[in-house]
Amino acid sequence: MGQTTEEPEPGLPGRGGPRSAATRQAILRAARAQFAAKGYEQATIRAIAADAGIDASMVMRYYDTKAGLFAAASSIDLRLPDLRDVPRARLGRVLVHHFLDRWEGDPTDDALVVLLRSAVTDEKAAERMRAIFAEQAEVSIKAVVAGGDAHRRAALVGAHLLGVALCRHVIHLEPIASMRIEDLVGDVAPSIQAYLTKPLSDRQG
Amino acid sequence: MGQTTEEPEPGLPGRGGPRSAATRQAILRAARAQFAAKGYEQATIRAIAADAGIDASMVMRYYDTKAGLFAAASSIDLRLPDLRDVPRARLGRVLVHHFLDRWEGDPTDDALVVLLRSAVTDEKAAERMRAIFAEQAEVSIKAVVAGGDAHRRAALVGAHLLGVALCRHVIHLEPIASMRIEDLVGDVAPSIQAYLTKPLSDRQG
Repeated sequence: MGQTTEEPEPGLPGRGGPRSAATRQAILRAARAQFAAKGYEQATIRAIAADAGIDASMVMRYYDTKAGLFAAASSIDLRLPDLRDVPRARLGRVLVHHFLDRWEGDPTDDALVVLLRSAVTDEKAAERMRAIFAEQAEVSIKAVVAGGDAHRRAALVGAHLLGVALCRHVIHLEPIASMRIEDLVGDVAPSIQAYLTKPLSDRQG
Repeated sequence: MGQTTEEPEPGLPGRGGPRSAATRQAILRAARAQFAAKGYEQATIRAIAADAGIDASMVMRYYDTKAGLFAAASSIDLRLPDLRDVPRARLGRVLVHHFLDRWEGDPTDDALVVLLRSAVTDEKAAERMRAIFAEQAEVSIKAVVAGGDAHRRAALVGAHLLGVALCRHVIHLEPIASMRIEDLVGDVAPSIQAYLTKPLSDRQG
């Protein structure tokens, strides 16, 4: 999601006409904050509506249930490039760069950081994160990785990139938290490239 | 910390004679659970004492303040081996193996997972995690990594290993969550070895 705007955003989750885009974005932002702070069970529609500055009935009108609201608030498009268009030798670099850019992103769009925070304490958010990973990252990686171990390679890539995101955006471990994105890409890309293209478990260190 | 026992455990944080080891361990376990579930600010000595089945005054007797209790509950010994005794070609493998074993550990000792969960939502826990990393992992790595970039190498190693722990123990991303430890070591060790021993930012993918 981008900044709050009157412009309809195609594919923005939830019902309602184009004019309601700003309201829906306000609801989704409040929902992400509440789900992150309290977890799925403790978060309430009432508190989310209050944060968004609207009535709870309006939230229900757009999203029906808390489950529906959660699904919409944690619906994240990683916007991965089609890796089939990327030269094989640059796969690691392109993937790391895209991923770091995506996490940095629009300052109003901290949906990924919020989902990561939520997933650590909330099984429902962890399930969303696994689904986003499977439906987007894994599909994208499988398109360029041959063989039966694509599932495992994708998970190794995911584990490393999530660890980088965790240290950069959540735990603030230095120097990763403040390195220039280009330097971080340069450091991490070779590992990701190896997970995508080298034999597993007998790679030369 | 191991299982609850009457045996005094050297270095167990907190005051009190040897006989109080079981009580202190019960307090620390309850404290970790409360800090993880509620964060530092929301957790109360009263609730921790209740969970441990003792009086709040007993908790204060051992740990003085909530801050003291938090420090003790999040005091984790990574028990890293002296990497200077490890053949250089095996550094990655030894470090990954030790780290995965340590996280698997005694099932009653989930202090590391608890700290990771806490660190994601709580700045005080994140600070503890950075301190444990700096005082233990980074010191250990610096002993075998020459040059001014040891700080950066240590952070890259930490980011990758934390990502693996996150996927294996918290988010339960498959197949990392259920791989045999030996297979996971085989997959991840080459990346860690590269972070420790190869030139940064111009490694060959």
